[in-house]
Amino acid sequence: MVVKVYGPDYPSPKRALVCLIEKGVEFETVGVDLFKGEHKAPEYLKLQPFRSVPVVQDGDYTLFESRAIIRYYAEKYKEQGTELLGKTIEERGLVEQWLEVEAHNFHPPIYDLVLKIVYGPFIGLTPDPKQLKESEDKLCQVLDIYEERLSKSKYLAGDFFSLADLSHLPFTQYLMGKMGKEYLIRDRKHVSGWWDDISSRPSWKKVLELWPGLY
Amino acid sequence: MVVKVYGPDYPSPKRALVCLIEKGVEFETVGVDLFKGEHKAPEYLKLQPFRSVPVVQDGDYTLFESRAIIRYYAEKYKEQGTELLGKTIEERGLVEQWLEVEAHNFHPPIYDLVLKIVYGPFIGLTPDPKQLKESEDKLCQVLDIYEERLSKSKYLAGDFFSLADLSHLPFTQYLMGKMGKEYLIRDRKHVSGWWDDISSRPSWKKVLELWPGLY
Repeated sequence: MVVKVYGPDYPSPKRALVCLIEKGVEFETVGVDLFKGEHKAPEYLKLQPFRSVPVVQDGDYTLFESRAIIRYYAEKYKEQGTELLGKTIEERGLVEQWLEVEAHNFHPPIYDLVLKIVYGPFIGLTPDPKQLKESEDKLCQVLDIYEERLSKSKYLAGDFFSLADLSHLPFTQYLMGKMGKEYLIRDRKHVSGWWDDISSRPSWKKVLELWPGLY
Repeated sequence: MVVKVYGPDYPSPKRALVCLIEKGVEFETVGVDLFKGEHKAPEYLKLQPFRSVPVVQDGDYTLFESRAIIRYYAEKYKEQGTELLGKTIEERGLVEQWLEVEAHNFHPPIYDLVLKIVYGPFIGLTPDPKQLKESEDKLCQVLDIYEERLSKSKYLAGDFFSLADLSHLPFTQYLMGKMGKEYLIRDRKHVSGWWDDISSRPSWKKVLELWPGLY
């Protein structure tokens, strides 16, 4: 049974897509048009009651929340494709730590910027410059800590690529495109090198080629 | 080497404490007074650069982010104490899904309510009734989905207690105390039964007895 991934055009589902490619797992995608409200349709809510993407269906197993999905496939196919959870329980602990940092420190300010700047024009939202500045300042504080961390290890959880790095791909990509906020990455030597490394992986290039979204 | 847990008086570190008790792991605690700014002291920032609690030190291994810590100990002591990750990879996937729901859907509105109502008076913060109402409405939407879920399975990830349930203990406890928002739980039959079940575990009672905090 081929894995079905819902919502490939949006950033969070891209975590699942890039993970499945890294693990060499075959999948197909199912479009969900958020602008048309397809995530609020009764059939969709049976799969994902919180009205968000992605969902995966794998035979009769259904899973939502992108960071849960990537953990599941990294574990299920541990012996196949790229190792994404580290080799020891201690390494996995650090992968979990930086995945949580991504979710709780990095994600809220970058999500706010992306929502307002990239998606705002499509949903009739005019950003307040003061709020944008606040989010950018918060993101800078997080990136300063990343800069320090990445001066000591090649990737966030250590000297190995992991889910913690992968999870940053979909939203960081916006900064590098039409948003014109590349400087947030380029002004930080180690963050910049890390971004070049992780974003040049064939898995991520393939995701961008197949589902360019609004980058 | 006994595990050291920093910040036991605050809610997020209590995730680590209740998990360690469930797993039968010996630990000691180190006070961190956030009101005195001890989380901004240079020595503390070496352990936790994002200025938050908890941190654990386990010999020369240091880990922060409460939901990373509980995953680490649940995995490290898989064969000891309560099984908290499910028995199969599919069960663990669902534990991860509901842990993510706790972090991204449940936590933001309840954190906002607790910060403003419980901690507000100590930090000179006067809550805006409109914002409180918004957070409470968001929390209600999440609890309505929990009610539906818990009408079909005894716990969030299935018919077994897991990290997904445990992770809800520290913040939900506030609703049941001085906040006077018990009705958010009691008005929902299955959520109410679930809360009685998980909050009556000896591990959680011990945490409340030893570190009552501001409940």
